[in-house]
Amino acid sequence: MSEFNSPEIARLLKQQVNFLSAETATSPVIISSRIRLARNLKGFPFPGAADPTVRQEVADSAAAAIRRSRALGRGSMSFNIAELSVLEREILLERHLASRSLLEGEAGQMLHISANEALAVMVNEEDHLRMQAILPGSQLRKAWKMVNALDDKLSGQLDIAYDSKLGFLTSCLSNVGTGIRISQMLHLPALTIDGSIKQLERGLPKLGLTMRGMFGEGSENLGFFYQISNQSTLGESEMAIMEHLEQVIGQVVDHEENARLKLLEQNRTRLLDKVGRSFAALRYSYILPSKEAFAALSGVRLGVDLKMFHALDSKLLNDLLIAANSGHLQYNAGRLLSEAERDAYRAQVMREALKKNYDREL
Amino acid sequence: MSEFNSPEIARLLKQQVNFLSAETATSPVIISSRIRLARNLKGFPFPGAADPTVRQEVADSAAAAIRRSRALGRGSMSFNIAELSVLEREILLERHLASRSLLEGEAGQMLHISANEALAVMVNEEDHLRMQAILPGSQLRKAWKMVNALDDKLSGQLDIAYDSKLGFLTSCLSNVGTGIRISQMLHLPALTIDGSIKQLERGLPKLGLTMRGMFGEGSENLGFFYQISNQSTLGESEMAIMEHLEQVIGQVVDHEENARLKLLEQNRTRLLDKVGRSFAALRYSYILPSKEAFAALSGVRLGVDLKMFHALDSKLLNDLLIAANSGHLQYNAGRLLSEAERDAYRAQVMREALKKNYDREL
Repeated sequence: MSEFNSPEIARLLKQQVNFLSAETATSPVIISSRIRLARNLKGFPFPGAADPTVRQEVADSAAAAIRRSRALGRGSMSFNIAELSVLEREILLERHLASRSLLEGEAGQMLHISANEALAVMVNEEDHLRMQAILPGSQLRKAWKMVNALDDKLSGQLDIAYDSKLGFLTSCLSNVGTGIRISQMLHLPALTIDGSIKQLERGLPKLGLTMRGMFGEGSENLGFFYQISNQSTLGESEMAIMEHLEQVIGQVVDHEENARLKLLEQNRTRLLDKVGRSFAALRYSYILPSKEAFAALSGVRLGVDLKMFHALDSKLLNDLLIAANSGHLQYNAGRLLSEAERDAYRAQVMREALKKNYDREL
Repeated sequence: MSEFNSPEIARLLKQQVNFLSAETATSPVIISSRIRLARNLKGFPFPGAADPTVRQEVADSAAAAIRRSRALGRGSMSFNIAELSVLEREILLERHLASRSLLEGEAGQMLHISANEALAVMVNEEDHLRMQAILPGSQLRKAWKMVNALDDKLSGQLDIAYDSKLGFLTSCLSNVGTGIRISQMLHLPALTIDGSIKQLERGLPKLGLTMRGMFGEGSENLGFFYQISNQSTLGESEMAIMEHLEQVIGQVVDHEENARLKLLEQNRTRLLDKVGRSFAALRYSYILPSKEAFAALSGVRLGVDLKMFHALDSKLLNDLLIAANSGHLQYNAGRLLSEAERDAYRAQVMREALKKNYDREL
């Protein structure tokens, strides 16, 4: 099987990643908003306990429901994960359309997405259905409307497991109830530099929230990007969970903005040095490991937020934030690359993008 | 006493440092050539054993001889070290016109230089007189002619201590005989990167030669700059010493040039990365410690030698190699700076020089 098989993946690569498509967000701190609902079909064992035939039956029901309801709109795409190459699966992960556990490609594991990637339905991940809406910037309300409409349409076609006392039944207890997970990706360079990110990380669980790296559970913090989401889904309405998260994140955003001002006042040179060296690493290196690339993209983004660049915009930085990932990198190169080749090609992509889009700065 | 007292020092600061003034050297490896002669006056104890009155008497005789013989030409300058500020002494050291031990400023310690800094006479350093000629590039023969003529002129006016068996008598045994020290400053990035510089350093003493850092004895290697000079001065003619040094350095230059070609062939990306990041550090940092600055200037110089830049030239790099030193830095700033201020000002000087002289590259 070729690494470059799926015409739909090729189509995705030609468009901007939806959750990073906002050119000017309301807050430079909130990168994207995501809501995910977990649902299961009545009368079928959860995917982890189901045999291949049952999983395939669930996958077929889900596919038919999506088709009939037109819930994903015109130009939607469907992927049978098992038919995708390792590289193509990586692309889906890097675009935040699928989780690692869906991408194992077991029987019946499928992904359905809307043409613009804002809506996605994972089939036979931990639950039968995991629906998500993911949008750029701070748009939780809109994401909720979208995923709620998707849920209504699919529930109209499928018999969803629901307990009048507990709510939606899910494979993992942490999802029972509303089955909702609400999260926002934040860019917190100042809180990272001044060290208060550690306090934040320790404090959030007491508020029923949790903080993770850019690629979700267990992922390393690359750059200064963090995801904050709710931990439990039981006993509160979706709206109450959302309002609570919005309130806490509002405070985090305030802290970050204050910390930036304080850094500018008290450590201006150090801050300029960080931003300048970040730009320099992207613009002039020939070997660029992914960790350094993400940290540098993060540093330059801070500089853009602080109006240190007059031509560079966050659209380009957003594109590079995706292009720096090894799946996208290899796909764009048109072949599989060794780690050393990836580091060299990543440097080339960054260097050329900044050379073309930008000349003299700072 | 002000830190900025001497009009002669102010004059020096306005001109390019002589030994770094060559825009195109014959070899990109040999930065400069220097010959130093040690001489003492008959009938006076060596400076270390002389009391202030005697030292002053030697200083007066030397000054009169230099004046009468016009050995340093039009526009020559004389410095009474004790009258100079700490900062002004640092300037002389950084321009390779005086040694640390002259700059203690004891009674009778003086420095006389020609207008273009190519000739210098240190008085009451370790010996009564230390004359030097220092020239850019590979010009040992010319330096020898110049310092020899200077020696002839001063010897015509002074009674020099000479033993028909031993030769010239000097304070330190290592200088007895010809009293000559011949050295060249080399830029050896490839031998440093591929590690063979260590072998070279171990091998040279067996050939009667020694290798030191950019600022002579006991100085750290800043960047990839090294000085190679003869160790002993007894039992051989000046010409024999010079020919031997030239022959060995010729081999070192060949090794360096081969190592550069090999790096280009076998480690091209790593080399480009080093050069690119060196340029980036100078062009975009806001905090630049001296060690990093010298290493970066060295990396960029390698890039210029390898024709990686189309506009940048070694003249600018030579100017920056002097401007990066803390004495010149503070003198140019017009005030004494703390270490943190120096690192910030050094970054500013480098950034602005590269911004002005150079836009897009690599």
